[in-house]
Amino acid sequence: MKKIRAAVVGYGNIGKYVLEALQAAPDFEVAGVLRRSVQNTPEELKKYPVAEKIEALGAVDVALLCVPTRSVEKYATELLGKGIHTVDSFDIHSQITELREKLGNIAKRHGKVAVISAGWDPGSDSVIRALLEACAPKGITYTNFGPGMSMGHTVAVKAIAGVRAALSMTIPAGTGIHRRMVYVEPEDGADFQQIVREIKNDPYFVHDETHVFQVESVDALSDMGHGVNLSRKGVSGKTQNQLFEFNMQINNPALTAQIMVSCARASLLQAPGCYTLIELPPIDLLYGRREELIRRLV
Amino acid sequence: MKKIRAAVVGYGNIGKYVLEALQAAPDFEVAGVLRRSVQNTPEELKKYPVAEKIEALGAVDVALLCVPTRSVEKYATELLGKGIHTVDSFDIHSQITELREKLGNIAKRHGKVAVISAGWDPGSDSVIRALLEACAPKGITYTNFGPGMSMGHTVAVKAIAGVRAALSMTIPAGTGIHRRMVYVEPEDGADFQQIVREIKNDPYFVHDETHVFQVESVDALSDMGHGVNLSRKGVSGKTQNQLFEFNMQINNPALTAQIMVSCARASLLQAPGCYTLIELPPIDLLYGRREELIRRLV
Repeated sequence: MKKIRAAVVGYGNIGKYVLEALQAAPDFEVAGVLRRSVQNTPEELKKYPVAEKIEALGAVDVALLCVPTRSVEKYATELLGKGIHTVDSFDIHSQITELREKLGNIAKRHGKVAVISAGWDPGSDSVIRALLEACAPKGITYTNFGPGMSMGHTVAVKAIAGVRAALSMTIPAGTGIHRRMVYVEPEDGADFQQIVREIKNDPYFVHDETHVFQVESVDALSDMGHGVNLSRKGVSGKTQNQLFEFNMQINNPALTAQIMVSCARASLLQAPGCYTLIELPPIDLLYGRREELIRRLV
Repeated sequence: MKKIRAAVVGYGNIGKYVLEALQAAPDFEVAGVLRRSVQNTPEELKKYPVAEKIEALGAVDVALLCVPTRSVEKYATELLGKGIHTVDSFDIHSQITELREKLGNIAKRHGKVAVISAGWDPGSDSVIRALLEACAPKGITYTNFGPGMSMGHTVAVKAIAGVRAALSMTIPAGTGIHRRMVYVEPEDGADFQQIVREIKNDPYFVHDETHVFQVESVDALSDMGHGVNLSRKGVSGKTQNQLFEFNMQINNPALTAQIMVSCARASLLQAPGCYTLIELPPIDLLYGRREELIRRLV
């Protein structure tokens, strides 16, 4: 079996878990890892090519973009242009259709495939939402997140003057409403009450019930677990009160990374263009003979 | 907008709900209903063509096969041969790959599409199972059914001598194990204890915990509700203990019918061939502009 040669682009939190998911997948081969600097290579990367430019990795079928969301477009544009499929976990919901159109044009021009927003939300949750609308076209879906860390909210708190470290937890309060529990390690001499006021007036927090706590060590509270409760009550045909619910409790970056790797596999099977997860046949995400998968899963 | 012209083939329990789902869908038009006999047409069909032969319905894009599972192949073969896409809810899990191959050859020869096993299990549950394997490739999925009526088990009990009417309920006992609660209305003078022994020795029941009760009226117990609890605990990459769960409580034929109609929509968007639900992009099941669906659901 010819293995799929994959490059890991960026080696932060997601990159580390993507490397593990590639190592665990029977049909992938790690072509190498792209980093901004090849100094201080960690032990687990010593057996792979580590480089600043993709050309140093030899043939690459697909690149997994483990870079900040705002850098995804730049990296995807460059790599698609070099004839490499790309997968990312772009997570700014309001900008997904725009990114899809831009990368779609570039991907088609180069005969390649980009899979975007390939995480769990956007991502696998999106597939559940689409499937439940197919099951009950009329009705309301609520996506409840947490308990788990919100990256966006945490970054917003860290930007406030006097904050040394911070953690913003998302707590589900039902029907898509969330409570914010914010843990702050202030700098010496900072005015904690002033920090609290600034957090509560920040656009990220102003509409939610927000509680702010001063703590000695934010690091001591950190955990990568996250959760989702997604529910839909709706109408199948003319029949009311059809009830559906999806729950998960997961390690956040590990799940994101695994879905990216599953989508990297699917990227090789699509016509040129840009795809979100709801546009991919679920079977294309899986390793194995098609007939065998159908026999086992359908 | 040109509407999709759909024929309902068979007008039993599923057929009635398929008609309702077609009436509720903004992009479908009911071409008519095929029945074995056009005598005694029920009131709700009077505004549609009702016929024994598909030719009497005018142009038909897709036929929804609401016939017994064992008749699906015959009807699909005939209708694909006449240039009509077909959708069914074939539910004998062990024969799905075989049916897929047979209908796939016929569909390709006529440039048409067959979507098979388009119910909830096989069907939407299959999509969940596939998605959860993409999220956590190693691990165990348990599908727990019920509480709800098992058609197959009920038919097996009805076949026993001395049984006037019967109902076999499937009760989930966890980890994919099920208890059978069987309600029997014996014929006058029948030996109830003999019926109990025959049920417990029947291949349908011999491996499960089975309880049999004598009742005055099976009809008084009948309800079309059903449920599923599907769980997976598995490994994303090398990260253990990723937990996923899907639950639903639904009207059984209404959900089956709605999924068939959603798949009829998708049938018009696929290359010729035969598909199970895990081979269809979820977005193809939905009504609406693609960009709008992505903006709303991803």
